[in-house]
Amino acid sequence: MKWTFVNNEFAEEGKDRIRTGDLALQRGYAVFDYFRTIHNKPLFLDDYLQRFFNSAAALFITVPHNPEAVKALIFQLIEKNHIPQSGIRMIATGGYAPDSYTPVEGNFILQQQPLQLPDTATFETGIKIITQEYQRDLPEVKSINYLMGIWLQKKVKEKQAADVLYFQNHIISEFPRANVFIVTPEGRLATPSRNLLQGITRKKVIELAGELLPVEERDVFLPELTHAAEVFMTSTTKRILPVTEVDGIRIGNGTAGPVTRKLYTRFLEMEATQV
Amino acid sequence: MKWTFVNNEFAEEGKDRIRTGDLALQRGYAVFDYFRTIHNKPLFLDDYLQRFFNSAAALFITVPHNPEAVKALIFQLIEKNHIPQSGIRMIATGGYAPDSYTPVEGNFILQQQPLQLPDTATFETGIKIITQEYQRDLPEVKSINYLMGIWLQKKVKEKQAADVLYFQNHIISEFPRANVFIVTPEGRLATPSRNLLQGITRKKVIELAGELLPVEERDVFLPELTHAAEVFMTSTTKRILPVTEVDGIRIGNGTAGPVTRKLYTRFLEMEATQV
Repeated sequence: MKWTFVNNEFAEEGKDRIRTGDLALQRGYAVFDYFRTIHNKPLFLDDYLQRFFNSAAALFITVPHNPEAVKALIFQLIEKNHIPQSGIRMIATGGYAPDSYTPVEGNFILQQQPLQLPDTATFETGIKIITQEYQRDLPEVKSINYLMGIWLQKKVKEKQAADVLYFQNHIISEFPRANVFIVTPEGRLATPSRNLLQGITRKKVIELAGELLPVEERDVFLPELTHAAEVFMTSTTKRILPVTEVDGIRIGNGTAGPVTRKLYTRFLEMEATQV
Repeated sequence: MKWTFVNNEFAEEGKDRIRTGDLALQRGYAVFDYFRTIHNKPLFLDDYLQRFFNSAAALFITVPHNPEAVKALIFQLIEKNHIPQSGIRMIATGGYAPDSYTPVEGNFILQQQPLQLPDTATFETGIKIITQEYQRDLPEVKSINYLMGIWLQKKVKEKQAADVLYFQNHIISEFPRANVFIVTPEGRLATPSRNLLQGITRKKVIELAGELLPVEERDVFLPELTHAAEVFMTSTTKRILPVTEVDGIRIGNGTAGPVTRKLYTRFLEMEATQV
């Protein structure tokens, strides 16, 4: 039996419903966040909670529970569902707006699903990506607006790629659901600094990398990608995943690079200390 | 008692629910359309239905009923609710996607609400607007993405305006929920031609205007706005509404202009022949 939390109560699967007048359904107006559990323990929960409440505030969305209450509900959900390796999604919507436009008190939802992370083989070969000129609206906010990300999936599949990296004015920013890093030919780690969602995994990787090599948060230009020694993405559901082909051009020797491997190992160690 | 239609059945108010796993809620991925009824009869329904199904196809969203079936459901809804002057919203979502990302068969919703159109006083004084550099994603598709439109409401209110007109590269496009027309000092009607949603009211106004003055669908530049003899917006919920102030600059003599009045009268006459 899988439980979801909706507003003030836990709902069994299939009974986790909200009314159709919500602004998320009518206007795509809602924020969310998404974190992992390992052995029934949430990973980096405080970071995710903080970002969730920041996103809500930025969109004038009222979350009907405070951060401490949300935290308590999350632990109850984990206890009820007992899905040791999972992803938990928190959503706060614009609510049942009488005028179908102006946010009111939001609906609040917690969902938990089993989560499978990329396997070793995927890490070794890495993934192919394409690039696309695009800039998300209000990129620092984790809104539910994935219109372009989802719409672009057709193009991604046609190109036999696994994901799409956004850029604008020749500067790369992010994937729809992940951040990007490059290792320069000079052995420096660089990651875009603006017009993107500040990923929690991104933040942890920057912390870890500081002990290994010089780290630069700065504008990263499109040509730097294909000339990089290594490229990888970071995200909650992928941890660290090598990118070995960009728009048909092989990166490095086409497999997971040494810096990516080292960071991945360090990240797994950091995870182990947390849970 | 107000009824909503959800997927395969009519639901009483409060029971019109969908599950929280829908892509509209998780990823803001859905299309919709919205038309009026007068004396319990839908206005220009075929135009709206066609646009709705075009939007769905453009986003790879499956509507679980064909256009004729949707039409029949709309007439049933009108009969059940008996709200003579109303707005009816059709929504088709990305559905309950197991991976929270890839559209599957969509949820389909019909909602009906009483609708109050602008009164004569509002028409006479017109409205104040501000302008904002912004371009909607996939503008020809009526998606539910109103993230920026709603987020900008705070700025609109601070400026004591009623709405915000988007432009990019000095070319105006549309309001979040309406189209824009100008009457040039030379007495020609002009309306932006690209990067916008093709409004049904816009289309009807272009048809009507052809008998009155030269009509141009073309790029309209920002400075043309403030130098226009008249400016007005068109939308389903506003019909034709004069814009009498743009970014603090008065348009014409600051009241509804003669061309706007004539088109408004003609539009009301056209409406009367339809219902």
